[in-house]
Amino acid sequence: MSGTLYGLGVGPGDPELITVKALRLLRSAPVLAYPAPETGDSLARSIVADLLPGGQEEVPIRFPLKVERFPAQEVYDRAAIILGRHLDAGRDVAVLCEGDPFFYGSFIFLFARMAEAHTVEVVPGVSSLTACAAMLEAPLATRNEVLTVVPGPLGDPELKTHLSSGSSIAIIKVGRHFRRIRDLLQDLGLGERARYVEHATMASQKILPLDRVDPDGVPYFSMILVRDPMVRWA
Amino acid sequence: MSGTLYGLGVGPGDPELITVKALRLLRSAPVLAYPAPETGDSLARSIVADLLPGGQEEVPIRFPLKVERFPAQEVYDRAAIILGRHLDAGRDVAVLCEGDPFFYGSFIFLFARMAEAHTVEVVPGVSSLTACAAMLEAPLATRNEVLTVVPGPLGDPELKTHLSSGSSIAIIKVGRHFRRIRDLLQDLGLGERARYVEHATMASQKILPLDRVDPDGVPYFSMILVRDPMVRWA
Repeated sequence: MSGTLYGLGVGPGDPELITVKALRLLRSAPVLAYPAPETGDSLARSIVADLLPGGQEEVPIRFPLKVERFPAQEVYDRAAIILGRHLDAGRDVAVLCEGDPFFYGSFIFLFARMAEAHTVEVVPGVSSLTACAAMLEAPLATRNEVLTVVPGPLGDPELKTHLSSGSSIAIIKVGRHFRRIRDLLQDLGLGERARYVEHATMASQKILPLDRVDPDGVPYFSMILVRDPMVRWA
Repeated sequence: MSGTLYGLGVGPGDPELITVKALRLLRSAPVLAYPAPETGDSLARSIVADLLPGGQEEVPIRFPLKVERFPAQEVYDRAAIILGRHLDAGRDVAVLCEGDPFFYGSFIFLFARMAEAHTVEVVPGVSSLTACAAMLEAPLATRNEVLTVVPGPLGDPELKTHLSSGSSIAIIKVGRHFRRIRDLLQDLGLGERARYVEHATMASQKILPLDRVDPDGVPYFSMILVRDPMVRWA
């Protein structure tokens, strides 16, 4: 019997925001895998560190420092081979995913390599999208409003089109693009309607209006929500 | 001491997809409230029915049958008064919300009435959005793709604009609008790229290509995902 590859959404950062299902599978899988930097701790693993029973085999999927924004094909290729061997030997593998595995998650690149040859189950998690809204005390969207999720690395023309659409907007992966995005929002008269969140639900969480954010200290895990003018910020 | 109003995301339907935090608050709150039809069971309550310890006071927020699509202002006004009395008497109130409270949730209408005068905490949940993607075994969006959430009741011109944008699309609240949306997708040549899901993660879950859906049997809790042509369906 082959093992199952689980893509486990562990939620946005607060360990209590893991689902009961992900917690059960996390504790029972003989093998855990997770993305990690070249040296040092994995964010996904740190979220669940206090929930682990101990004694599980761990496979960190380490990314070289120079690979910042786009998936390192070779890293995923190699990880797929290593995890595939565990599955072939009958061992279930749980891949820890920040937020939700299929919402801009790096699990998607493993899934693309492994779904054909192996049994895969994706366990959805609380995404950063809804976590940010909860922390901001601001609804994402209601009634017949359109909600658009826009990656910050997009170019100015495309960003501008989306920001001008009148939809509710969530700008993700803000990181080093903050200054450009802030200026664009202010040019469009949307600065007052925007709020910045970093590390939502974690101990290091910050919520700020745009003009109080230090543009040089914005992490990858940050988001800007822009709301319809009809909706009051709490 | 006044009580706290909790907006508890209970997840998309599978009781195991509740978070550890929502489960803890669900079990400890002296008062539970939830939306319900005029007669019969509440969907939100049915999701957590087997998790309740018993002995909690329950406040169903019942909607008259004729109110289908838009919030009944008087129902929310009255519920806010009743729940406010519990809070003033020092009792915490947990409002059960399908999916996530701030992702098109009816909790938003209670929040708008109660957030100023009371302490409110929103506990994010797994939304139908990520649950549908997991059940379809299809990523929502990756890299620098734009993801747009479009309510099905929108008019044809607006729907068409969004569907033609090249974004990944989630059409929510499909219900009685199915026939019109299906025809629009097929006219735009997107029929093959679209998948229909109803009651994701519940025992009654259905996943179908558009041409196999019975247009007269589509519930409100249904979604159509449309993916970028570059991404293969699993």
